[in-house]
Amino acid sequence: MPVNWEQVYAERARAMRASEIRELLKLTEQPDIISFAGGMPDPSLFSKREFAAVTAQVLEEKAGRALQYGQTEGILPLRELLVEKMRGEGITLDLDNLTIITASQQGLDLLGKVLVDPGDVVLVEAPTYLGALQAVTTFQGRALGIPLDDDGLRVDLLEAKLQELHRQNIRPKFLYTIPNFQNPAGVTLALERRYRLLAVASEYDLPIVEDDPYGYIRFSGEPLPSLKALDSEGRVITLRSFSKILAPGIRLGWMIGDAAFIRKVVIAKQSADACSPSLTQYIAYEFCRRGYLQPYIERVQEAYRQKCECMLTCMEEFFPPEVRWTRPQGGFFVWATAPDSVDTVELFPRVVAAKVAYVVGSAFFPDGSGRNTMRLNFSLPSLADICVGIQRLGSLLQEEIQQQERVPLKMAA
Amino acid sequence: MPVNWEQVYAERARAMRASEIRELLKLTEQPDIISFAGGMPDPSLFSKREFAAVTAQVLEEKAGRALQYGQTEGILPLRELLVEKMRGEGITLDLDNLTIITASQQGLDLLGKVLVDPGDVVLVEAPTYLGALQAVTTFQGRALGIPLDDDGLRVDLLEAKLQELHRQNIRPKFLYTIPNFQNPAGVTLALERRYRLLAVASEYDLPIVEDDPYGYIRFSGEPLPSLKALDSEGRVITLRSFSKILAPGIRLGWMIGDAAFIRKVVIAKQSADACSPSLTQYIAYEFCRRGYLQPYIERVQEAYRQKCECMLTCMEEFFPPEVRWTRPQGGFFVWATAPDSVDTVELFPRVVAAKVAYVVGSAFFPDGSGRNTMRLNFSLPSLADICVGIQRLGSLLQEEIQQQERVPLKMAA
Repeated sequence: MPVNWEQVYAERARAMRASEIRELLKLTEQPDIISFAGGMPDPSLFSKREFAAVTAQVLEEKAGRALQYGQTEGILPLRELLVEKMRGEGITLDLDNLTIITASQQGLDLLGKVLVDPGDVVLVEAPTYLGALQAVTTFQGRALGIPLDDDGLRVDLLEAKLQELHRQNIRPKFLYTIPNFQNPAGVTLALERRYRLLAVASEYDLPIVEDDPYGYIRFSGEPLPSLKALDSEGRVITLRSFSKILAPGIRLGWMIGDAAFIRKVVIAKQSADACSPSLTQYIAYEFCRRGYLQPYIERVQEAYRQKCECMLTCMEEFFPPEVRWTRPQGGFFVWATAPDSVDTVELFPRVVAAKVAYVVGSAFFPDGSGRNTMRLNFSLPSLADICVGIQRLGSLLQEEIQQQERVPLKMAA
Repeated sequence: MPVNWEQVYAERARAMRASEIRELLKLTEQPDIISFAGGMPDPSLFSKREFAAVTAQVLEEKAGRALQYGQTEGILPLRELLVEKMRGEGITLDLDNLTIITASQQGLDLLGKVLVDPGDVVLVEAPTYLGALQAVTTFQGRALGIPLDDDGLRVDLLEAKLQELHRQNIRPKFLYTIPNFQNPAGVTLALERRYRLLAVASEYDLPIVEDDPYGYIRFSGEPLPSLKALDSEGRVITLRSFSKILAPGIRLGWMIGDAAFIRKVVIAKQSADACSPSLTQYIAYEFCRRGYLQPYIERVQEAYRQKCECMLTCMEEFFPPEVRWTRPQGGFFVWATAPDSVDTVELFPRVVAAKVAYVVGSAFFPDGSGRNTMRLNFSLPSLADICVGIQRLGSLLQEEIQQQERVPLKMAA
């Protein structure tokens, strides 16, 4: 008799489903589609030559270590380099406050594992990063969304929610926030809100997980201090990633936090993957040591600034006036909000038929709301594709809005 | 007020502790210690030149893809290559029966996540791989040990345990077994027991997780069919690893199983690390495609054959006759059993003082038994170190046994 795996799964696995968004994304894989659905860096910008040089050196000089198992918390030179880098950004930390992770997604999974019991409430931004929602639901936590505006998380609404939960005797495990160039909304948490957030979190003894994969990709405006740099209570756990400032294909990031907490995370990481790839850790170290990081970041900033500007200009030109959108100062994404009458999920098949694609906004809301929203990625498509794709999308939105406006008339007729 | 993280941890994290073995292992990190405690390949054998050539080609020709995000289930050419390889080993499978994993340890973690509910019974060999025990306990499962002998898992005792559990209305989630050159015991599951195991598993509808990281490192005796090759019911999930046949520093392995099951695992992997490193996947693919794998495996087989022989010969020469040990046909480890009077945990500080080290055997038993046992690794130390180290260890065991024998005399005096 063949095994009936459905009967064998753990409770937490029953809720795991191929996400709607990933199914929709499959539709966008046809080569002639202009896709704004991805979340990837532009591979033509990768520092290919520097990578080749650095990797050749690592394999020439350190193959024995680079190809071997390494410590779970990461190779020492890379950790030391990152500690120095973080100190340069105003974060007070020692070596035992930092561990290497197999990119931020592993960090989210480890945080879920170490913090989330079934039924636990985790506060997130609404909308928020899909991978964070998955990490929470994997461990059977319950994500509650706090709205955003153009200045990032509505800290006043967070406070109101904390009061409400407190009255219900519910203590949320942590707040998950992406303060810089948020995924998916593209907005940045204003400075005064950062201070206010830490004060509110302190009042309610709420731990904060600060996910900051895009922070270095700022192409306009002034850099703001990270939440971790403002944290004096060991309240903030910060996730950083090499994916956007070096390359996603090396799967590396780092986590910073209270030393005892990081020790616990490292124990959880032992059974998650034993250690992150030594080879790519040595490559990342050497890449940074040689000073190749900053020129790459600057190249990426300039390229994405152009792409973002192009997208915003085209949206101005081709999107119907009823649609609103965010104006990011960095990162990968613009967030567009259509009138309530437009359902971006229902519209999606026609969008794909018109050879363009977005991610339906509802995928980023823990409660599935936001069906009139969409995420548009500008980092991957070319400038020309951005123009053509936004024009296509604009026409469809125009049609849809006009059609919706006609519906009541028809019904009246 | 600083955050009190102890109050914030999830239930499952409270049980996570830095393992005793890892604490003991720290003692062995002094450079003048001859350590048989590790579980690493000999880095002097790594195909350094081939790695450099392959990596240079990948970065020259495919940097855009190798540095980018990839599909969660792995890059297509590597999956296709592995499907062909597995078919060559008598395993019937399609592409959707296989996913790349970030080495076997991630496979174990994903299996725990997808299969283990708190309180679930998982059957393991006693002794078994520490990382598997951690993966089970991370998800609050309960590992029950089934004894081994020189022919591997005692399938008769497994059957008895299944009967006993059945009477208690307990259905174990799966059996975890390492059929080839077991870690830590070095023993191999005999052919007739493989058939018997599948029959028993079928009778009790017991899923089997076959972990086979060492199978290719056979240096004597005839290769045996894998459990997966003998499985006609989709009952066996197999974990394979590149760590021992290419390099651990690339963190890659693969999992084979029922297609629906693999789909579930891939969903769990999405939130675990999004994808395995594309860079090392392309390197592994190109390494295999060029035919570099087999020469490396043969070099490793020959080197470890010599080291194992050397260790066994030295044990014959220097270990007291009261100590017994296994005679592996492959892999990394010899397992030694001293008389019950010897406690390898208590002995450990003196062992380290004598500048030699093992892993205490009790670390590998789910119930902490086996305190008279030890695991000895022969893959990493040099032949000379094996001779000197085994001699040191032999003297200590000799002393310890003699001293234990004198204790009753003293008491009688």
